[in-house]
Amino acid sequence: MARVVVVGAVAAGTSAASQAKRRDPSAEVILLERGEQVSYGACGLPYNIEDPRRSIEDVLVVSAERFREERGIDLRTQHEAIALDTSNKLLRVRDRQRGEEYELGYDKLVLATGASAAQLPLPGSELEGVFQLRTFEDGAAIKGFLAELPRKRAVIVGAGYIGMEMAEALHAHGIALTVLEKAEQVVPGFEPALAELVRAELHAQGVRVETGVELQRIVQAKGGLSVESDRGAFAADLVLISVGVRPNVALAKEAGIRLGKTGAIAVDQEQRTSAPDVFAAGDCAEARHLVTGEPTWVPLGTTANKQGKVAGANAIGAHERFEGIVGTAAFKVFGLEVGRTGLARAELTRAALDAISSTTTHETRGHSYPGNTTVTTLLFAERATGRLLGAQLVGGEGVAGRIDVLATALHAKMTLDQLAALDLAYAPPLAPVWDPLLIAASTAKKELRAAKSR
Amino acid sequence: MARVVVVGAVAAGTSAASQAKRRDPSAEVILLERGEQVSYGACGLPYNIEDPRRSIEDVLVVSAERFREERGIDLRTQHEAIALDTSNKLLRVRDRQRGEEYELGYDKLVLATGASAAQLPLPGSELEGVFQLRTFEDGAAIKGFLAELPRKRAVIVGAGYIGMEMAEALHAHGIALTVLEKAEQVVPGFEPALAELVRAELHAQGVRVETGVELQRIVQAKGGLSVESDRGAFAADLVLISVGVRPNVALAKEAGIRLGKTGAIAVDQEQRTSAPDVFAAGDCAEARHLVTGEPTWVPLGTTANKQGKVAGANAIGAHERFEGIVGTAAFKVFGLEVGRTGLARAELTRAALDAISSTTTHETRGHSYPGNTTVTTLLFAERATGRLLGAQLVGGEGVAGRIDVLATALHAKMTLDQLAALDLAYAPPLAPVWDPLLIAASTAKKELRAAKSR
Repeated sequence: MARVVVVGAVAAGTSAASQAKRRDPSAEVILLERGEQVSYGACGLPYNIEDPRRSIEDVLVVSAERFREERGIDLRTQHEAIALDTSNKLLRVRDRQRGEEYELGYDKLVLATGASAAQLPLPGSELEGVFQLRTFEDGAAIKGFLAELPRKRAVIVGAGYIGMEMAEALHAHGIALTVLEKAEQVVPGFEPALAELVRAELHAQGVRVETGVELQRIVQAKGGLSVESDRGAFAADLVLISVGVRPNVALAKEAGIRLGKTGAIAVDQEQRTSAPDVFAAGDCAEARHLVTGEPTWVPLGTTANKQGKVAGANAIGAHERFEGIVGTAAFKVFGLEVGRTGLARAELTRAALDAISSTTTHETRGHSYPGNTTVTTLLFAERATGRLLGAQLVGGEGVAGRIDVLATALHAKMTLDQLAALDLAYAPPLAPVWDPLLIAASTAKKELRAAKSR
Repeated sequence: MARVVVVGAVAAGTSAASQAKRRDPSAEVILLERGEQVSYGACGLPYNIEDPRRSIEDVLVVSAERFREERGIDLRTQHEAIALDTSNKLLRVRDRQRGEEYELGYDKLVLATGASAAQLPLPGSELEGVFQLRTFEDGAAIKGFLAELPRKRAVIVGAGYIGMEMAEALHAHGIALTVLEKAEQVVPGFEPALAELVRAELHAQGVRVETGVELQRIVQAKGGLSVESDRGAFAADLVLISVGVRPNVALAKEAGIRLGKTGAIAVDQEQRTSAPDVFAAGDCAEARHLVTGEPTWVPLGTTANKQGKVAGANAIGAHERFEGIVGTAAFKVFGLEVGRTGLARAELTRAALDAISSTTTHETRGHSYPGNTTVTTLLFAERATGRLLGAQLVGGEGVAGRIDVLATALHAKMTLDQLAALDLAYAPPLAPVWDPLLIAASTAKKELRAAKSR
């Protein structure tokens, strides 16, 4: 009987374990999780925190019992893999509850160790009332703290996706909010013109936003915390630090498994690492970017689930492939939906791709249909060929669907000509007769022609 | 100075005339329209009728004055082209206001004569209170009649898109509604399982629905109209007959211009008809179906606008191409969004394509996110190759965006494998981690495997 060991039981790990057991019910599948909770929708944490009537347990997708009983998986929570010997196919595991260590042999191993919140070298980060949001435990801690909070002031450090989602969540608690961002704009990675739309929405909701801020320290002040910076001090009862994530690769790295240029674990399209019989999947692993053909690291739940499924299947002898990603991501902040797919400017530069860009703003519904909103669409296209390379959208509705169309176009390596010719849906309540995407593509075509004649 | 004459000034015709004038400001562009109004969003009529506070003029997109003054187009409303001599490049035109006829020569001609509501051979169709909805004038007549209506009962004959949209519009006026449909289901063309979802929504809103009904006649009864059928009589103050549309091809046909198998005007991809220097665009013309490669006739505003632009450009010497359509259409009825793209069952049969189908229902938002709804997705795929051939969706939200993804996949001739591997957006308020499209594609892949092993 083959033994498959999976390290990490959030998205990729639970997918891998479930897939392996489903494909080969006779396999022994052991799923190690250093935390207490498994299979939670981490992306749902901000929305759960937003609503005081919901229990934090709502974000759990599958209970530990169900893994054990229904799926027949040997799930071991609070068991942490601390060392890996790929020559002898042995893991060293610490049982955190009993304080004991043991060795665990495997036939196939899937590393799904995930990512952790990036740490700032910021004095005072350890103070009570300073949080990060990555794990179920983080979410539970914030939610518990909020329920007891006497006063209501918060500082969010970092204006990325999580910062934006938590701005909405904390705002719903009637908390006076300040968002501090080191970059000169919110949602770094987005083009400045689109980032300004997000900043305007934050302002409209009464959220204070400061960009280009250098933090110095967090100190305990009279009646709360104080976040000190080159732009003065900001009083807060709660500070959330959300400055990105880093892949958890220590176990792999110490075992001599190859990391990619991105710092995450290098894998082939069958999710195999450089070590025999060791797979990696999810936020700890790279993926191939289908626009550049190069490895990239975009830690997101969708990719984690897909890679986990492939790793789990291949761990029991299949040869499934995970083709790759196009860098699709989306979030909502107050009345705005925000999304991107493909390459952003920094990635275009890194890949030495010569691109034109074009930005258009158009209505999301038919002519004079009530409730109309606008969507701003930025497209990047290759100057020489007209091939779509990336897109960013900010709008009142319909952003996810349009981002998905553009992601599909990226998968198919479509040009602007092909994009402009798409037969898209039209109905006044749902979309205008010239969909904003078609206008964006036509406008970008003109920009491309103008750029060629310059 | 070249003279371009365009016949018909709704979607295709106004696009053609505007495009021709924009590309060659020195061209003389004459735009003939037999009605009084030009450039109206006909698809917006039901939503305008729904709202008594809005003027029917709201559906006008560009005023006649703007065509004449800003665009420099010689727009002649109430001028009807009644005969065409393609050998001598002459149109015979009737000025309906003055009751005069005149000859009009052209260098290039664009036929954008549109489509008309199909007529039922139904005695009593001419009675007061019996309407169809196709033109601006139809919309104005219904809206005027509703404003004066003493009692509030209506019968809608035909449960297609317009019938469904008008059900919602009339319901908003507090009208007791019955929908009568000849076919055994509502929204003919959709698979029965999806049509049942639409029927259930109509029932839930208190709309009576009768399918498989043979109409006999409409008669004037005491205190209103009576629609008589093999299933009894239905009392009504207003009857709307919406049983499809037919292309307006009399002018072209009498001039010896070739019609296609569909009955609409045959065109090549530059919108040229069989007659030299005569183009056709919009609801009177065919288009190439990109799934079958064959000519088809799907009269919709999006296609009309695109074909009009191409015809207008080519009328002044360009060689633009309209590649074709994939049959995308969408509408909303009460709380449901409904859409389709690609081939439906009858078209698959006609094209002799051997297809499997698969139907799945999944949530539209993230795990336990508030306001979640479901969407039902039906996919058709080619048995031998797995190529996507068509799709139908019914759901509470996000249908247009997902239909557009599938339309894009059809343009790219994607297989189910490719569809299942798409990197689609995920954010709990906008879409679940496994988008319903990805689950639909995975399920269809399983169905395909099962069908192959049978």
